[in-house]
Parts: sequence; C-alpha cells; structure tokens
Amino acid sequence: MRIVVLAGGIGGARFLVGVRAYAREVGAEVTAVLNVGDDASMHGLRICPDLDSVMYTLGGGADPERGWGRVGETWTVKGELAAYGAEPTWFGLGDKDIATHLVRSTMLTAGYPLSAVTEALCDRWQPGVRMLPASDDRLETHAVVEIDGEHKAIHFQEWWVRYRGDLPTERFVFVGAESAKPAPGVLDALAAADVVLVAPSNPVVSIAPILAVPGLREAVAAARVVGVSPIIGGAPVRGMADKCLAIVGAECTAAGVGALYGADLLDGWLVDTTDQGAEVPGVTVRAVPLWMSDEQATAAMVRAAMELA
Amino acid sequence: MRIVVLAGGIGGARFLVGVRAYAREVGAEVTAVLNVGDDASMHGLRICPDLDSVMYTLGGGADPERGWGRVGETWTVKGELAAYGAEPTWFGLGDKDIATHLVRSTMLTAGYPLSAVTEALCDRWQPGVRMLPASDDRLETHAVVEIDGEHKAIHFQEWWVRYRGDLPTERFVFVGAESAKPAPGVLDALAAADVVLVAPSNPVVSIAPILAVPGLREAVAAARVVGVSPIIGGAPVRGMADKCLAIVGAECTAAGVGALYGADLLDGWLVDTTDQGAEVPGVTVRAVPLWMSDEQATAAMVRAAMELA
Repeated sequence: MRIVVLAGGIGGARFLVGVRAYAREVGAEVTAVLNVGDDASMHGLRICPDLDSVMYTLGGGADPERGWGRVGETWTVKGELAAYGAEPTWFGLGDKDIATHLVRSTMLTAGYPLSAVTEALCDRWQPGVRMLPASDDRLETHAVVEIDGEHKAIHFQEWWVRYRGDLPTERFVFVGAESAKPAPGVLDALAAADVVLVAPSNPVVSIAPILAVPGLREAVAAARVVGVSPIIGGAPVRGMADKCLAIVGAECTAAGVGALYGADLLDGWLVDTTDQGAEVPGVTVRAVPLWMSDEQATAAMVRAAMELA
Repeated sequence: MRIVVLAGGIGGARFLVGVRAYAREVGAEVTAVLNVGDDASMHGLRICPDLDSVMYTLGGGADPERGWGRVGETWTVKGELAAYGAEPTWFGLGDKDIATHLVRSTMLTAGYPLSAVTEALCDRWQPGVRMLPASDDRLETHAVVEIDGEHKAIHFQEWWVRYRGDLPTERFVFVGAESAKPAPGVLDALAAADVVLVAPSNPVVSIAPILAVPGLREAVAAARVVGVSPIIGGAPVRGMADKCLAIVGAECTAAGVGALYGADLLDGWLVDTTDQGAEVPGVTVRAVPLWMSDEQATAAMVRAAMELA
C-alpha cells in the first residue's frame, strides 16, 4: 500500500503524525509532497518553514506548545541581529533552527537541489515518511496588497508574520510556478499511489501552491484522492484559512473548501461531525471527528479517510 | 596627529586598546589596517577572525578570558551543526558571533566590499578607531604541509585551529596576494600618517599578509615606522609565533623579528626590558616593559613607541 499526502506546515505535520501511525499499523509506505511557497531567504539563509515543521514534528524535535520551530529553542542570534539593526526584524529565527538553515543554504549554494538537501537533513531526523518538496524550483507565494494606498506584492511570510494577514489583499500569486517542475520522485510517487490524501492544511496558501506546479494537479487528479477539511464548524482549526478563503472568494466552510478543490480533484471529502450534511457536488462526503488532539485520534481520522477511498 | 597601526587579531586588539587610550590623551586619530589572511568561509558564512577580534575588543564585546569571540557567548548552533554532521567540526562558531557573520555574509553577497561591511558592523561597536581591512580582495593565508606523506596546501585556519600548527610545514603562501589591492583608504591613511606602528602581532601570519598586498609595504616603508616586538625573552607572548618563525627560518627572538622586518621597513623597534641590548642593523632599538597587562600599561608602551618615532 502506497499513500501520498499533500501537506503544508504545522497542520500538515500534525496530520502526517497520524498518517505515519496508520501506515505503521497497516504496513504502508508514505510519501509527503510538501509546500514550498512559504520558503524565503532571510539574513542570507534559505528558510523552508513547511518542510522544517514537518521534519521537526515527525523527527521529535518540534516545539509542541508553540506549534512551530524547535523544542528548547534559544534566541541568541536573533537578539544580536536586532542589535545590528539587521532586517527583517519581524521574522524570528531560533538558534537551533538556524543550524538547519545553515546546512541547507550551504548545500543549495554548492548546487544540490532542495529535494537532495531535504533528504540529507532527514538523515538526522528520520521522519519515517519520505519527504519531497513539491518542486526544486523557485515557487514563492506572494500577496498582492495595498499598503498606504500603494498596490504591491509582498512575500507570503511578510503578509503572514509581519502583517498577520491584516492588509487589504487582492490575491495571492505563486511566483515562478508556471516554469516550476515537480521535484524528482513526485510524479512517480503520485503515479504509484493507491491513495492521495490532502491534509487539512490551508487550501489557499499551502495546498494550492503545490497544485500550481504544472503537471502536478493532473497527476493528483488521476489518483484516488481523499481530502480532509481544515474548516470545522465554519472556522479554521488553526492559522488564517478564513482570511485566505475570503481573498479567493471561497466560503469558509467544510463544503466551501471541498467545492474549491472540486470533483475534478477529489473523490472523497472528510468533514467533521459538526459539519454533518455538508455536500460537495460530485464528491463523496463523510463526517467523522476531525480534531487532531493526539496521534491516536489523528490516526483514526486517517483510517476513516482511507476507508472512504 | 595621525597614527596608523598594522595589526592582526587578539594581540593586535589588545595593543589597539592602548593605542586608543594614548590617542585620546593626545588627541590623535587612529586608523587600524588589519590582516585578512585568516578570513575563511565556514558553513556558508564569511568569517573574519582578526577584524572581529579587534571590533569586539575595542567595542567592549570580547571575551576577556578566552581571548577571542564574544563575552557571554552561547553554542547552540554549534551543537546543532554537529548533530547534522556538518563539516568543519573543528571550528567552533558561537551564536553571538554567528549573527556578525550573517550580517557580513548577507552584505558581501549583496555586493558590498569588506571595507564597507566592516564600517557598517562598526556602527554598532563604535571601536573608536577607524578599522580597515588590508584589502577587499581575496587574500588567504595557506600553509603548505605534509599530511600522511602527501604535500598539500591547507587554509591557515585549518593549520592553526585543527592541527594547532603541529604538522610538517614547508611554508606559508598568501593566495591571491599578487592581484589584491589595498582597501579604499589604506594608502591615503599611510600617506597621511605621522607614525605607523606595527603591533606585536604574529610577524609571519598576521603582519606579513598585510605587507603582501602590492604597494602596501612600500607605502608603510615611506612613513616613520616603529614596531613592537611580539617576542619577549625568546618566547611569543601568545599564539604560535615560535612555530611560524621557524618555518620562515627566522630566529624566535626580539632581534630576530626586528631583522625579519628589516631596516627598509622599520625606523624604530621596541623590545621588552628582558631583551635589553637586542640589536637590529640600521634600526633604533629601545627596551621598555612590553607586557600588555592592562590598558594603562599598553598605553605606556604606545607612548614609548611614539617617543621612539
């Protein structure tokens, strides 16, 4: 049995913990195809927030309280960068995290593609699932916003972290997407997948950038696909999916997100019991508890998704 | 009154504290022309040990116990890099120090020359003297050594930090020196100098790489030059000047180092009272206490050097 999971960062990481638990039970192989649209360069370092959230979480090194970054993190470098007045000051890099970025940046500069770098980093973390970036090519999510009456595109991290999405926002663009290629292994994994699961990640800024890689959406759609709703009772479980959905004109409901993906992508759509009765035209909808309170509860969600498939 | 000081790292930094104290007393301007031969790239960061030792020491941020790096340093990133198995493992970068290297590397990558980067870093540290790298161009000290019967050139940092100089060593080479240009301001400062002081730094691997920049030795020699011996009673005050002197076939004595610089460079040569009677052909030698035990003692040395000039 082969499972491919499309996922973003924090929510995706938590979901993957459940997928891994399920896969160990049934003896399945898991490949995670991960969003790179959040990746950014700060202080000369290449930062891959979603890849790292998944890697740290599955590798047992994530901070369970904060939800992102490393457990037992320290902030010495950050304080020093601030003392130099180094921009950006709104993005906090932890000391432990910086080591990851140093290793990654050194390898990227040496010419290794992001997929090879990710594999090398995973040598340490042993995440137990195969982690692939959606693309090795530049694909950055930018938000077209209005600041002081001026229309401009800012990097997603600036939109999310600096402004907390609190800006008049016209749309998101995936810079570089049109010429990006799926990373090595992605299309093969999708072609060999018995089931593709869409994690309950942000559909607009975590899953959409993955599907924006030419050829990737078609390869996903050709498989048996079950998605898990990131919206429960009309509100996002975490993050700012509500703001993002409003920007693309989608309803912030389980049915709304299901419809956004659509029947051409999804075969099944898992919603929370709160959203019992939600309908997505052409898609089989099932309601089960979707709170990822612990590994067991999440594995139960995954089992329900696999049964729906 | 204008003073230019040629200096390396730790010893040079300590000497410059005394020069600054003296200069404040007499209202002189100080320009330090600093060795860049130790500079290296590690984990994608550009490290300038001598520039940083001087900047941290004069800026009040150096560790007075260890003699290098930052006071109150922490080592989180180093531990994480080791966990990744990232090479080199023999060079320890402190967390606070890393912030300096991040700012420097980001600016260098953006196209700023090292002299401009150094000036920007000094905005924070306010060293109280003008700090100039000897050159903005690549000039790296390598040691030609024998390892396991094989002759090869290794970077000075590897020779010094990894092997503690404990290798059969044929010679030092200053890679890139022949095409390096003095950094902006260096020749002007030398031309305007009332006195040039050669700090009691390592003559072979701290001062020689500065003088190896084409045009620099001549510009120094044209000024009134007083050097301060780094050797007291036949032994280096710190570091491995004895090993380095042996490699270039010079005697490890105050007179030996004076003769190495020679009368074409030096007008005066300050030795310790222990070395009273040392002679350097064509150079005026004077003996005063040379232990840089504190700022006042060092300022007294500088006063003696200025009087000799």
